[in-house]
Amino acid sequence: MANPNAKGDRRERELVTALDEAGFAVMRAPASGSATERELPDVLAGDGETFYAIEAKSSAGDPIYLSGEEIEALVYFARNFGAKPRVGVRFDREEWYFFHPGDLYETDGGNYRVKKETALAEGTDFAEFTGESRKVTLEEISVRSEADNKREILEAVKRGDLSVDEALEMF
Amino acid sequence: MANPNAKGDRRERELVTALDEAGFAVMRAPASGSATERELPDVLAGDGETFYAIEAKSSAGDPIYLSGEEIEALVYFARNFGAKPRVGVRFDREEWYFFHPGDLYETDGGNYRVKKETALAEGTDFAEFTGESRKVTLEEISVRSEADNKREILEAVKRGDLSVDEALEMF
Repeated sequence: MANPNAKGDRRERELVTALDEAGFAVMRAPASGSATERELPDVLAGDGETFYAIEAKSSAGDPIYLSGEEIEALVYFARNFGAKPRVGVRFDREEWYFFHPGDLYETDGGNYRVKKETALAEGTDFAEFTGESRKVTLEEISVRSEADNKREILEAVKRGDLSVDEALEMF
Repeated sequence: MANPNAKGDRRERELVTALDEAGFAVMRAPASGSATERELPDVLAGDGETFYAIEAKSSAGDPIYLSGEEIEALVYFARNFGAKPRVGVRFDREEWYFFHPGDLYETDGGNYRVKKETALAEGTDFAEFTGESRKVTLEEISVRSEADNKREILEAVKRGDLSVDEALEMF
């Protein structure tokens, strides 16, 4: 859902710019006129191997709340599109921190809450977030046990770091 | 680039709705305020395995023209995001037809031109465009040869249709 306030809008633009500078191609959702009635995530970002659908929330207050509907729409869109769903939170005078929706605290009312102290302690910071897509080298794979080895190969295929043909040769 | 006229806007919404109904998660570019100075494609669509960046042009006239800058921006964004670049053209009283940018006729001035007769004869129609991606079911996987079987499993992992743990059990 587009952030209705000017400061939130500016924060979201800053996030888009930062993702762009980190090497992602980024599209923000339009403020209105999405054509379908589906809720869109705020940001879609891809770098050729990792795709993120991001719900971005900034606030002067603490904690930051997200509605159950926002999270459901994020997860639904991400799954259908083929992107990883992430919630980005930004408290004043702090950086952006990112969470998988499944790691958020769910309130009794079915909404979601992120405390500032939780974000700083447990959130993925921007550098880690944009650096998450790291190629596994063949050397790293080869020193593992056979089961770990298979798992690494499958995960590399999942990420797109290994082609199916490359993986088939390794099995 | 967002289509500045109301009819073009309506056509583009119709395209988004049709893609949504065909099983894609779709985001339209905002009309303005993209945060970065990069030109965005009109539409991003994904169905969990195929990602399209689409420049959509509708016209009452024939032919439809696209500027060299539009095509360059489309190809640049698509490559960075990790999507397939496509140009969608829609002439009045016709369906949408899709082209890879490399298949468009380039004019002497460095722009691109699609004649209606070319679109109808050589363009990919909507059904073909959206039918390219088909999910493989587990039943279909099980009747294949072992090598094909492994390949199908790896491809399902790549698409995210199988988790790494599910795939490990199958190997």
